[in-house]
Amino acid sequence: MREIDVLNGPNLNLLGTREPGIYGRLTLADIEAQLKARAGDRATLSFRQSNHEGELVTWIQEAGAAGRAVILNAGAYTHTSVALRDAISGAKAEVIEVHLSNVHAREEFRHHSWLSPVCIGVIAGFGPLSYALALEALLERQRTP
Amino acid sequence: MREIDVLNGPNLNLLGTREPGIYGRLTLADIEAQLKARAGDRATLSFRQSNHEGELVTWIQEAGAAGRAVILNAGAYTHTSVALRDAISGAKAEVIEVHLSNVHAREEFRHHSWLSPVCIGVIAGFGPLSYALALEALLERQRTP
Amino acid sequence: MREIDVLNGPNLNLLGTREPGIYGRLTLADIEAQLKARAGDRATLSFRQSNHEGELVTWIQEAGAAGRAVILNAGAYTHTSVALRDAISGAKAEVIEVHLSNVHAREEFRHHSWLSPVCIGVIAGFGPLSYALALEALLERQRTP
Amino acid sequence: MREIDVLNGPNLNLLGTREPGIYGRLTLADIEAQLKARAGDRATLSFRQSNHEGELVTWIQEAGAAGRAVILNAGAYTHTSVALRDAISGAKAEVIEVHLSNVHAREEFRHHSWLSPVCIGVIAGFGPLSYALALEALLERQRTP
Amino acid sequence: MREIDVLNGPNLNLLGTREPGIYGRLTLADIEAQLKARAGDRATLSFRQSNHEGELVTWIQEAGAAGRAVILNAGAYTHTSVALRDAISGAKAEVIEVHLSNVHAREEFRHHSWLSPVCIGVIAGFGPLSYALALEALLERQRTP
Amino acid sequence: MREIDVLNGPNLNLLGTREPGIYGRLTLADIEAQLKARAGDRATLSFRQSNHEGELVTWIQEAGAAGRAVILNAGAYTHTSVALRDAISGAKAEVIEVHLSNVHAREEFRHHSWLSPVCIGVIAGFGPLSYALALEALLERQRTP
Amino acid sequence: MREIDVLNGPNLNLLGTREPGIYGRLTLADIEAQLKARAGDRATLSFRQSNHEGELVTWIQEAGAAGRAVILNAGAYTHTSVALRDAISGAKAEVIEVHLSNVHAREEFRHHSWLSPVCIGVIAGFGPLSYALALEALLERQRTP
Amino acid sequence: MREIDVLNGPNLNLLGTREPGIYGRLTLADIEAQLKARAGDRATLSFRQSNHEGELVTWIQEAGAAGRAVILNAGAYTHTSVALRDAISGAKAEVIEVHLSNVHAREEFRHHSWLSPVCIGVIAGFGPLSYALALEALLERQRTP
Amino acid sequence: MREIDVLNGPNLNLLGTREPGIYGRLTLADIEAQLKARAGDRATLSFRQSNHEGELVTWIQEAGAAGRAVILNAGAYTHTSVALRDAISGAKAEVIEVHLSNVHAREEFRHHSWLSPVCIGVIAGFGPLSYALALEALLERQRTP
Amino acid sequence: MREIDVLNGPNLNLLGTREPGIYGRLTLADIEAQLKARAGDRATLSFRQSNHEGELVTWIQEAGAAGRAVILNAGAYTHTSVALRDAISGAKAEVIEVHLSNVHAREEFRHHSWLSPVCIGVIAGFGPLSYALALEALLERQRTP
Amino acid sequence: MREIDVLNGPNLNLLGTREPGIYGRLTLADIEAQLKARAGDRATLSFRQSNHEGELVTWIQEAGAAGRAVILNAGAYTHTSVALRDAISGAKAEVIEVHLSNVHAREEFRHHSWLSPVCIGVIAGFGPLSYALALEALLERQRTP
Amino acid sequence: MREIDVLNGPNLNLLGTREPGIYGRLTLADIEAQLKARAGDRATLSFRQSNHEGELVTWIQEAGAAGRAVILNAGAYTHTSVALRDAISGAKAEVIEVHLSNVHAREEFRHHSWLSPVCIGVIAGFGPLSYALALEALLERQRTP
Repeated sequence: MREIDVLNGPNLNLLGTREPGIYGRLTLADIEAQLKARAGDRATLSFRQSNHEGELVTWIQEAGAAGRAVILNAGAYTHTSVALRDAISGAKAEVIEVHLSNVHAREEFRHHSWLSPVCIGVIAGFGPLSYALALEALLERQRTP
Repeated sequence: MREIDVLNGPNLNLLGTREPGIYGRLTLADIEAQLKARAGDRATLSFRQSNHEGELVTWIQEAGAAGRAVILNAGAYTHTSVALRDAISGAKAEVIEVHLSNVHAREEFRHHSWLSPVCIGVIAGFGPLSYALALEALLERQRTP
Repeated sequence: MREIDVLNGPNLNLLGTREPGIYGRLTLADIEAQLKARAGDRATLSFRQSNHEGELVTWIQEAGAAGRAVILNAGAYTHTSVALRDAISGAKAEVIEVHLSNVHAREEFRHHSWLSPVCIGVIAGFGPLSYALALEALLERQRTP
Repeated sequence: MREIDVLNGPNLNLLGTREPGIYGRLTLADIEAQLKARAGDRATLSFRQSNHEGELVTWIQEAGAAGRAVILNAGAYTHTSVALRDAISGAKAEVIEVHLSNVHAREEFRHHSWLSPVCIGVIAGFGPLSYALALEALLERQRTP
Repeated sequence: MREIDVLNGPNLNLLGTREPGIYGRLTLADIEAQLKARAGDRATLSFRQSNHEGELVTWIQEAGAAGRAVILNAGAYTHTSVALRDAISGAKAEVIEVHLSNVHAREEFRHHSWLSPVCIGVIAGFGPLSYALALEALLERQRTP
Repeated sequence: MREIDVLNGPNLNLLGTREPGIYGRLTLADIEAQLKARAGDRATLSFRQSNHEGELVTWIQEAGAAGRAVILNAGAYTHTSVALRDAISGAKAEVIEVHLSNVHAREEFRHHSWLSPVCIGVIAGFGPLSYALALEALLERQRTP
Repeated sequence: MREIDVLNGPNLNLLGTREPGIYGRLTLADIEAQLKARAGDRATLSFRQSNHEGELVTWIQEAGAAGRAVILNAGAYTHTSVALRDAISGAKAEVIEVHLSNVHAREEFRHHSWLSPVCIGVIAGFGPLSYALALEALLERQRTP
Repeated sequence: MREIDVLNGPNLNLLGTREPGIYGRLTLADIEAQLKARAGDRATLSFRQSNHEGELVTWIQEAGAAGRAVILNAGAYTHTSVALRDAISGAKAEVIEVHLSNVHAREEFRHHSWLSPVCIGVIAGFGPLSYALALEALLERQRTP
Repeated sequence: MREIDVLNGPNLNLLGTREPGIYGRLTLADIEAQLKARAGDRATLSFRQSNHEGELVTWIQEAGAAGRAVILNAGAYTHTSVALRDAISGAKAEVIEVHLSNVHAREEFRHHSWLSPVCIGVIAGFGPLSYALALEALLERQRTP
Repeated sequence: MREIDVLNGPNLNLLGTREPGIYGRLTLADIEAQLKARAGDRATLSFRQSNHEGELVTWIQEAGAAGRAVILNAGAYTHTSVALRDAISGAKAEVIEVHLSNVHAREEFRHHSWLSPVCIGVIAGFGPLSYALALEALLERQRTP
Repeated sequence: MREIDVLNGPNLNLLGTREPGIYGRLTLADIEAQLKARAGDRATLSFRQSNHEGELVTWIQEAGAAGRAVILNAGAYTHTSVALRDAISGAKAEVIEVHLSNVHAREEFRHHSWLSPVCIGVIAGFGPLSYALALEALLERQRTP
Repeated sequence: MREIDVLNGPNLNLLGTREPGIYGRLTLADIEAQLKARAGDRATLSFRQSNHEGELVTWIQEAGAAGRAVILNAGAYTHTSVALRDAISGAKAEVIEVHLSNVHAREEFRHHSWLSPVCIGVIAGFGPLSYALALEALLERQRTP
C-alpha cells in the first residue's frame, strides 16, 4: 500500500472561508475526508498544513527520506521559495504540485512556480479535484512504470 | 454520455518516435486506444491531430458550438498562438490543457502558455496519463458541479 | 470603381456569438451587408475570412498583385504574425488595419501589432463602424492624393 | 446638432511647415476649414490648440462637463501625459484619439499611448482625413447606439 | 546520390518582385534552376514553397522520416514558429537554415531565430548564393564525417 | 502657528464628481473646509489646485523659500514629473505626499512616484483622511524633533 | 472600544540599536508604550513581534477571524512575502501598512510592497509617528464610514 | 551679429541657492551677465526661464521660426518631454543642449535625454562654463561651415 | 580566543546524501568535526542548522549582539531573504558568506545574493574547504587590522 | 587573383586541443593548409591569429585599406567588441563572419554578434567547412555581381 | 603652462576617410595641428592614438600620475570598457570625454558611456570643435577654481 | 612543489595609491612578497600584471598548457571579457577568481562576472588576504582530492 503525504502551505487552513469565489467552500478537513475515502485501501494518506516555509521544507525532507510520495499545495510559497525547491530535489522526493485554482488565470506573479521544474508534474485549476487527480496519478504511475 | 474532443497539435503525430526520452514510446494511436478503453461507455471520444494552427482553431470552435468538452494538447502552439486562446474564450469551449512532458522543467520558452488563462485547468508531466487524468477531471466535474 | 478586399482573421467567423460584450451582436455577414450597402457603386467589396495565417498571407499577396486595396482585421494574428507583415510590405499592398474593439483598452499583449508599421493607418474601437471608416478612408484617399 | 471640441496638442500649430514629409502641407487652419465644411449643419465644431498640458487637461474637463464630444490629437503628450488620461476618465469625456501620421511606423516611443485605453477608439495615419473619420465616427455612433 | 529538400516559407513565392533591394531580382524558379544545375548528379533536389506553417511542419517531418536533408529558408516563421523547431528536433531532420538577406543587419525582431539551435548551421546574407553554399555544405559533410 | 500649503494637482478640481467609486463624494472645497476646521488655530492652511505642472513647480518653490510646509497631492504628475521632484529637493521644501486612493492597489503605472524619495513620507489610501493625517504629522513632527 | 493588533516583522526587535540613523533611537517597547498612551481608552492594543514569516501569517489570520484591525510593519517581508499578502486578503483582515523609514528613499528593492495592494492604505516615513497616524486612521475610519 | 536665445527650464530660477554642491553658487542672473560679457558684440543674447513645459515649447518654436540659435538647459524636462523634442525638430531650431552638472554621474534617470538626438550637440558637467562653451560652439560653427 | 558561529540554512542537514555530485559526501557533522579540529584552540565554534528563515534571523541577531563572528551558509535563503540581509546590517554582525558549490556555475537565480553586499566577503566553490577558508579569514583579519 | 585575409580571434590558437567536442580536432594550421589547398590559384590567403582586440582592429583596417576581403572568426570578441564593428564599417572592409560551432545552439550570450550587422553575411556551425564556404562565397560573389 | 594629453581610441586613426558623413574630412593630424595652433602657449599638447584598450589604460594612468589633464575620445571603448573607467577614477585623472559625432543621435548602444560618470564633463557632436571646446574648458577651469 | 601563476588585470599596478579606501595601501609588490613568504616551499609563485586583455588571455593559455594553477584577479575585465572566460575553459586551466574588494557591495555592474562559471571558486572582499586564501585553497585541494 502506497504511503502519501499531502502537504499544504500557508493560508490553506483558511479554506472554506477564504475567498470562496476562488477556492470553493470545502474546508481542508473536508478535502482530507474526501481524499481518504477515495484512496480507500489503495494508499495511506497523511494530511498536514503549515504556514511556515521551514516546516514544509522539513516535511518534504522526511517524506523523501522515508520514500513517501508527496502531493504538495505550497500556496504562496510556490512563487517565492527556493528552499522548498531545493528540498524536493535534495531529498529526491517524488512530488506532484497541485493548485485548487487555475493559477495561470490569476495575477501575473502566480504564473511562475519555483517548484514545477523539480516536480513530476503539475495539476491546477480543478478545485479539490486537483488533489484527487494527483492521487490517481501517483497510484497509476506505480502500476505502469 | 459525455462527448469529448481530444485535439492534438503540431508534431504529436510523431509520438513514439519523437524524442522518446521526453515523450515516451507510445504512439498517438496507442494513447487513443488506451483512452477509449478507459472511457468505456462513460464518454464518446473523438481524436484528431493537426499541424495547422488554423485547423485547431476551427476544431475548437466546432467543439464549443456543439457543447463538446475538449482535451487539448496544443504542442508548440501552446507557446505562440493567441488565435487558439481567442478560439477557446470566443467559443466558450470547456477545455483542459494537457502536456505529456513537464513543460516547466524544460526550456524557458515552454513555461509560458497563451492558453492556460482561458482553460479550466492544466495537467502536465504525466506522459499519456495526463490525458487520462483530464478525462477523469471532465467526467467528475460533470457529476459534482 | 475601386476594388477592395475585406479580409478577416481567426475567430471572426464567430462574430455575433463570441463575447458580444466586447465584439457586438452583428455577424460577419451582417457587417458585410452593411458595408456593401454603404459602398454602393463606389467600390466593389470582396469579403473573406480564414482561421489560417497562411491563407491570409496568400490573400494579401493576391490583393497586392492585383492592385486591390485591403481592409484587414487580422484578429489574433495581428499580435503574432511576422508573415502577414512581410506579405503586406512584400506585396506592396495598400492595407488599412481595423479592429472592432479598442485593443489598447484590453490585455497588454493586444497593444502590440506587427502589422501597423507597414499599413497606411489604423482604426480601432468603433465596432462594425471601424470597417466603414476604413472604407471611407480608402475612397477619400483615392480622390485627394 | 452635435457639439464637438477638436483639441490639438503641442507643436500642432506648426502644421504645414513642420516636417511636411510626415505631417503634410495643410495648416491647422486649413484642417479646421475642411472639417467645418464637412460637418455642415451636422455638428458644431470648436477648434483649439495649446502647447500646455495643463490647458488641454482643463479643456477636456470642460468638454466632459458640458457633454461635448472630443476629437483629440494630443501630439507628444499622447506618450507622456497621465494627467490627460485621468482628465478623460475623470470627466467621463467621449473622446476619439487621432493622429495625422501612422505613429506605429515611427520611433518606438510613439507606439505607446497613455490615452488609448480611456478613449472610444483610435484613428491614425490618414493625415487630415484622420480628423474627418473621427467626425464621421462621432456622428454615426450617435445615430446607431 | 544525396536527396535534399529545399523548403521555402511564407512570401518567398514573391521573390523577384518583393523588395528587390533586399531580396534581389531572381525568382524562386530561377534559384531552383540554378541550384539544380549546380547540384548536377551530386544530389536530387526537391523544391517547395508554402505560406502555411503547418505545411512546412509536415514537410520537415517527411524529410526527417525519409532521411532526406533539408535546406530551409523559413522566412518570417524563422522568428515566430516553435512548431517548426519542434518538427526539426522531433523528426531528427538534418537541416541547414538559410537566409537571402543578412537578417542581423535588419530589424531587431529578425535577429532571433527559433530554428538555429536545432539546425546544423546557419548561412545568411549571400542572396541566392546562400542556398548554393548550403548545398555544398551538405555534400561536403557527407564526404568528410 | 504653523503655515502649511495644501497643493493639489491635475483633475483634483473634479473631486466629488470624478469616479466617486475611487475618490469619494467630497469636493475639494469640502476637504478644505474639513481640514481647516481640524487645524483650528494650530495651523494656517492655504489651499490651491492647478492642472499645470509648471504652476505646481512654482508653488513648491515659493513654499520652500517661505519656510512653509507642504501637503502635496500631485495627482497624475506624481508618476511623470521630474520637475516637481527637483522643485522639492531644490527648494528644500518640507513636503508630505498624500493620495486619496491606495495607488498601489490600482494600475501598475501608479505604483511609481517620482516624488516619494524627496518627501518626508507618504500617506495613501484613506480618502480625505489622508490630508488630515498629513496635517497631524506635520504638527506632531514640529513638537517632537 | 476598538481592538487593534500591532504586528511587527523581522529585525524590528532590534529597534533603538539597529541603524539609528535610519530607524531612530526608540525601542519597540518605547513605541508600544507611546502608542498605548495615545490610544487611551479609545482602543485596546496588542503588540507582537516575530522574525518568522509563518508566525506573522498566523497572527494576521487570527486578527481577521476575530475582527480585530491590524497595524502591520512587516519589515523585510514587505518585499518578499506573498504568503502575508494572501493572509491579508484571505482572512479579510483590515490592515494598515506602516514603515518607520521612507522606504521609497532607500534601495530600489524596498520600493515594491507585496502587501500594499491588499491593505487599506500605507503610511511611511514618519518614524514612530507612522504607527500613531495609523492608529488615528483606524479610529477615525470607524467613526465616519 | 548672431542672435541666440538662452532658454532655461524648471527650477533653474533657483540657481545659487538650490543644491550648491551640485549646481554652484552663481545665480541665473550672474550667468546671464557673464555670458553677455563674453559674447560682447559677437552675439545678441536673449535670456529666459520658465517652469512651464508648454512655454518652453513655444519659445523653441519662435526661435526656430526667427532663425535664432538656442542654448537650451531644459532641466528636468530633458528627461520627460517629448513635446520639447518635437518642437526642436518641428521648428528646425539649431539647438545646443547644456547641463551645469555631469548628468551621467548622477541618478540613472538623468542619463536619458529626449532632446539629445535632435540637438547639434551636448555639453554637460562644466557648471556655468557649459553655457560659455555652447556659445563658442555656435559662433565657431558659423565661421567654418 | 575568537568565538565564531557557523550557521547553516535550509536543506544543509541533508549534506552527504543530497546531490553528492554537487555537494560532496561529507555530512554537516563531518564538516563540523573537521572545522573544529582545524580551529584547535584558535577559536570556539558553535555549529547550527535550521530550515527556518526566522530562526536564522534570530541567530544572526544574537551573534551580532554578542560580538561573535559568523560563517554563514544560508543555502536557498541566500537568494530570497531580505530579512537575513537586514539582520546582518541591523545587528552589525561580522559575517562571511560561504557556499559549498560554485553558485555562479549553476542556475541563473543562484547568481544573485541578497547577503553579499552586507557581508565582509564571499567564498564559494571549494566544498567543505569553503568553511575552512572562512575560518582562516576571520582569524587572520583579527591579527592584521 | 583575389587577396583574402583570414583573421582569427582569441583562443583560436588553441584549436585542436580546446574543447574538441565543440571545436573539432584540427589545428588552425591544419585549417590553413586545407583552405590554401582549396583556394589553389583562385586566391591568395593570408592567415593570422591574435588574442588582442586592438591587433584585430588594426588588421581589419589594413585589409580594408588594401582592398583585401576578410574571413573573420573573431571568437569571443564577436560578442563584446564594438571596436571591431567600427573597424569593419569604418574601413569599408568586405568581411564574412564565420564560426566553427553553431553559436546559436550554445549559451545565450553567444547569440548576439556586434559584427553581423556590418558584415556581408554569416556562416556558422560547419566546423572548418565554415571557412571553406566563406572562401567560395567570396570567390563566387566576385564572379556574379 | 598646462600639460594636456589628447588620447584617441580605436579607429580614430581612420579619420578623414572613415564615414566622412559622420566624422568629417579632417584627419587626426589635421585636428592635432588645429588644436596646437589654438592652444598656442597656453598649453602643451601631447597627441596619441591606439587601437588597444590596454594601451589607453596605461596612458590614462601615466597622465594621472604626472598630473596632466586628459582630453579623451575613447571611440568604441567608451561603450565597452570598464577598465578605462577604473583607470580614470583609479589614477584620479582629470578627464574630459569628447566625441566628434552626437552619439545620442546614433545607435542605441552608443548612448551609454562607461566613462562619463568619472569624467569632469562630456562634449559631443561638434566635430573637431569638440576637442577645441574641451581645451577651452580645461583652461578656463584652471583660472576659476 | 606546486607551480602557481598569480595573474593581475588592468589598473592593479596602481595598488597602494588607487582609491586606498577601497583597495588598501599595500602595493602589488607588497602582496607578492607576502604571498611568496606564505607559500614558502609549498609552491612556486609567478606574479604578473597586465592592462591588456589579450596578454591575460595568453597567460591563461600558457598556464593551462603547462598544468600550472592560476590565481586570477582580472580587475575590470572580470565584467567585460568573454575572451578570458573562453581562455579558462579552452585551456582547461585550474583557476581561482579573487577580488580585493567585496565586488557585490559596489556598483551593480561589478556583480556580474563572466569568469566565475568556469573557475573552481570565487574569493572576494578580504583585501590582500583574498590572494592568501586562494593559495591555501589550491594547496589543500591538491592534498585532498
